[in-house]
Amino acid sequence: MSVQLHNPADIAAPLGAYSHGVSGPGSGRWLHIAGQVGVHPDGSLADSIAGQAEAAWRNLVGVLADAGMTTGNLVKVNHYLLRCEHLQEYAAVRSRFLGDARPASTLLIVQALARPEWLVEVDAIAWRA
Amino acid sequence: MSVQLHNPADIAAPLGAYSHGVSGPGSGRWLHIAGQVGVHPDGSLADSIAGQAEAAWRNLVGVLADAGMTTGNLVKVNHYLLRCEHLQEYAAVRSRFLGDARPASTLLIVQALARPEWLVEVDAIAWRA
Amino acid sequence: MSVQLHNPADIAAPLGAYSHGVSGPGSGRWLHIAGQVGVHPDGSLADSIAGQAEAAWRNLVGVLADAGMTTGNLVKVNHYLLRCEHLQEYAAVRSRFLGDARPASTLLIVQALARPEWLVEVDAIAWRA
Repeated sequence: MSVQLHNPADIAAPLGAYSHGVSGPGSGRWLHIAGQVGVHPDGSLADSIAGQAEAAWRNLVGVLADAGMTTGNLVKVNHYLLRCEHLQEYAAVRSRFLGDARPASTLLIVQALARPEWLVEVDAIAWRA
Repeated sequence: MSVQLHNPADIAAPLGAYSHGVSGPGSGRWLHIAGQVGVHPDGSLADSIAGQAEAAWRNLVGVLADAGMTTGNLVKVNHYLLRCEHLQEYAAVRSRFLGDARPASTLLIVQALARPEWLVEVDAIAWRA
Repeated sequence: MSVQLHNPADIAAPLGAYSHGVSGPGSGRWLHIAGQVGVHPDGSLADSIAGQAEAAWRNLVGVLADAGMTTGNLVKVNHYLLRCEHLQEYAAVRSRFLGDARPASTLLIVQALARPEWLVEVDAIAWRA
């Protein structure tokens, strides 16, 4: 049993590595992941949008693994960036981590994150049987 | 079996078409909908806040339908706008689509969405037995 | 049966009163709480960040109670503030309400909320058996 993707033909196709909707059965286990940022395991901060994106996604994958999941289990991902001009670099990192996974997705440009030097944050919901 | 609304008497009544809380049983099916924007099925963008809101909600309804749901199945809806002065026009469109549905709701004014010409984005979580 | 916290050793420890991930079984009941703001039960608005945070969390606790839950049932909490300089005062209120609870958490600084005088909004997902 796994999640089901919803990309109806009467909506313009997704403009990136996501699905318009993803549904999962009530049975199984739901994981909610806190906003992950570009902080390395030693507490230091990666120093570019690409570096922070890479570190944030590594952290996200670490939380998934702790719950017995991979990016293939992602149902919804929220991406928070500070600057529009970081979008392309961020999307490249995200695509690499997602592989074939196509979770539902929302991306916002916000004014700031909890610390002024954080450039990107990503949180998620995942499911496994 | 359906969702339950939570609007306790010791909280000021909701200031719009939403409930303070909505709960659903673990059984059944949970749908996570990606941020929908004012893009028509042919890929063109609607050209006003009312038009983009209408198109975004049509898309949302399309994803719901693909999962065998309607707006009555919405549990939580997040609304993202760029400008406070769009609130009234947006709320009018939203109310028309919601009908009697009263999902839990959060509305944020953000700096930008993934493309500079997008004025509104809406994502959601829905449930059915 | 209760939720499980996920704070893997290969990720920097959480920088506050939250967990990197929280998972819950599909069985039981999932509650989605609308964005709560600093409005008192009589409809008046608290008049500082500390006051609004206190009122918003009281409201959140009221919705939880209506669903038979407490802050110990929180799985994910999203915090929306308007100003970075409000972070410390907000975190103090949040910690007091959370007690030992460590839900997954995301905090964003956004441009505005639905009304210009609102300084903080908080929404959440909770679970009980």
